[in-house]
Amino acid sequence: MTEIEKNTVIAVDAMGGDNAPDEIVKGAAIASIESPGKVILVGDETQIKSILCKEPYNSDQIEIVHTNEVITSEDVPREAVRRKPNASMIIAAKLCAEGRAHGVVSAGNTGAYVLSSSLNIPRIVGVRKTAIATVYPTRNAQKRRDHFALLLDVGANIHCSVEDMVQFALMGKIYASDIKGIQDPTVSLLNIGKESYKGGELLSSVYKILEELPEVNFIGNIEGNEVMLGLSDVVVTEGYVGNIVTKTMEGIAEMASHLGRYAFKHRFLWRLGLIALSSGIKQLKSSTDYSEYGGAPLLGFKEIVIKAHGRSKAKAITNAIKLAAKSHRDDVCGRIAKEIGAFESKNYSGKIENTLL
Amino acid sequence: MTEIEKNTVIAVDAMGGDNAPDEIVKGAAIASIESPGKVILVGDETQIKSILCKEPYNSDQIEIVHTNEVITSEDVPREAVRRKPNASMIIAAKLCAEGRAHGVVSAGNTGAYVLSSSLNIPRIVGVRKTAIATVYPTRNAQKRRDHFALLLDVGANIHCSVEDMVQFALMGKIYASDIKGIQDPTVSLLNIGKESYKGGELLSSVYKILEELPEVNFIGNIEGNEVMLGLSDVVVTEGYVGNIVTKTMEGIAEMASHLGRYAFKHRFLWRLGLIALSSGIKQLKSSTDYSEYGGAPLLGFKEIVIKAHGRSKAKAITNAIKLAAKSHRDDVCGRIAKEIGAFESKNYSGKIENTLL
Repeated sequence: MTEIEKNTVIAVDAMGGDNAPDEIVKGAAIASIESPGKVILVGDETQIKSILCKEPYNSDQIEIVHTNEVITSEDVPREAVRRKPNASMIIAAKLCAEGRAHGVVSAGNTGAYVLSSSLNIPRIVGVRKTAIATVYPTRNAQKRRDHFALLLDVGANIHCSVEDMVQFALMGKIYASDIKGIQDPTVSLLNIGKESYKGGELLSSVYKILEELPEVNFIGNIEGNEVMLGLSDVVVTEGYVGNIVTKTMEGIAEMASHLGRYAFKHRFLWRLGLIALSSGIKQLKSSTDYSEYGGAPLLGFKEIVIKAHGRSKAKAITNAIKLAAKSHRDDVCGRIAKEIGAFESKNYSGKIENTLL
Repeated sequence: MTEIEKNTVIAVDAMGGDNAPDEIVKGAAIASIESPGKVILVGDETQIKSILCKEPYNSDQIEIVHTNEVITSEDVPREAVRRKPNASMIIAAKLCAEGRAHGVVSAGNTGAYVLSSSLNIPRIVGVRKTAIATVYPTRNAQKRRDHFALLLDVGANIHCSVEDMVQFALMGKIYASDIKGIQDPTVSLLNIGKESYKGGELLSSVYKILEELPEVNFIGNIEGNEVMLGLSDVVVTEGYVGNIVTKTMEGIAEMASHLGRYAFKHRFLWRLGLIALSSGIKQLKSSTDYSEYGGAPLLGFKEIVIKAHGRSKAKAITNAIKLAAKSHRDDVCGRIAKEIGAFESKNYSGKIENTLL
């Protein structure tokens, strides 16, 4: 175990998510055994202790910071963050800001989490906007070790500027390179056509910069029907579009599982069919199991911020904690800072404005 | 047969689409028998005749207008429309403009079709932007007679103004009411959250107007994961987002069929499973068969303009022709003109600007 592994501390919002605090605390307990470094569980101490006492865990590597305020999924983000200054997700973010933790994980209210991170954890110098990056399964057209790609932004922002989107490409590239273990991830732009002039002024300007930027392995525009192919490791889009596309994909997955349940219930022959296919379905599920990736990073902060899925179970939380620790060890935030600094110093956006005039 | 049924003329681009001219001409031949009114086939006369002579058709109801120029799916729209002024889809649009036809159907290059329609067929007075509306299958949450909903705009425009989007709602409502045979179709706005203030200034202003407009049965915002549910008959969005969402749905459908083929080939047990499920798959396919709806209307023109799917076979073309004829008989364009006129005379947008200041 290296010194940095031992000293890494991840703050976990024990009270956020559909299965909190049970599954969150269990996930942290497993991480405390399987992984070096420490976890700080933030939330109701009595509840946390009563769950911990039923689980094996490494007591040297778990600490509890008590608070009894919680932001729920029903809360309106802006109001909740103001009304509940001691909410578990806010305290967790503050631990990062104070240097007591190197990363934070929450499965709670996404809007409130983005807001409380923004209010408490400093942004990397030069980063214009933070972004939420979702990790989603693809058909793995590039034949990578895994089936996943990164789509960002998926809702931290509504509309973006050219520079915001170029920065998303840079941040996404570094994160993808770290979690997928690849040297030079491919990057694409989600658009309504292949040609560089497509999608209006914003997207065509982003295209122009990405194409010229030696730091980015840019493969051009991809269209909606190619999102699932996995032609690139990182797909860049505006928050407004990314949010709608991600949720459309979720909606279709729900529709498929609804159809499966319907078929299972309604006809004996269909049930047999599904049973015969079950090993295939299982294989498909495991190759597209997002819980391996622990959740969606919020990129652009000085510390690692991970949004775990609202429905996360223990395994997803354990992986989110491990991932946050790994990202800290690999200095993902430092590498983003370096890349963003280099980009900003080149004043690409000034150049592009000139060519567009 | 009424007088208007007998006199309805639909111009068909015989040369556009993956299966042109064969399937297009066959589809027109069937329509000439099954449906009153006339079809003008525009394209290479020799080819058209050689297909027709192998098919049963009603010679009183089919006319051929010869041209040997064709715009292909590979052509760049703007260039092609300029370089090929006698392309079949352009001549077909001109027949509408000259009053010789009441509607036009093409399965060809979408961009070129939108452009050639815009250049040749006048817009309805008051319509700010024409829109492409796609007809897509849903989970039919409203328990309608059919499973389909209308999403618009899906790519005639990139970005839109508040008024453009309100007009999309009005045009979509009238078209949905006609093809679905329902009195007061529900309308929703595709957004990143339920609340009226979500999605930035554009979407929240559109929300505000739709909410106040007595002509529109507005049910509020829907999110990406609800698109497939069928909570509303009409979903309004900007062309840029609508295009990406529609193509994402297509991409997932392709992924599902790829997985099915993979499973069928790779394991005997999986093949058995798929066979056991085949009646369910067939049922699902027929309930979500877009060819029943003949294609996507381009709304806002003074005549009916239908874009059939590029992969259309004869059945889809027959239905597109029937649908165009029905829309003409039901005076869809006249009803849109009336609704748009009434909306514009109320000066809603002026009012909204005042409340936003």
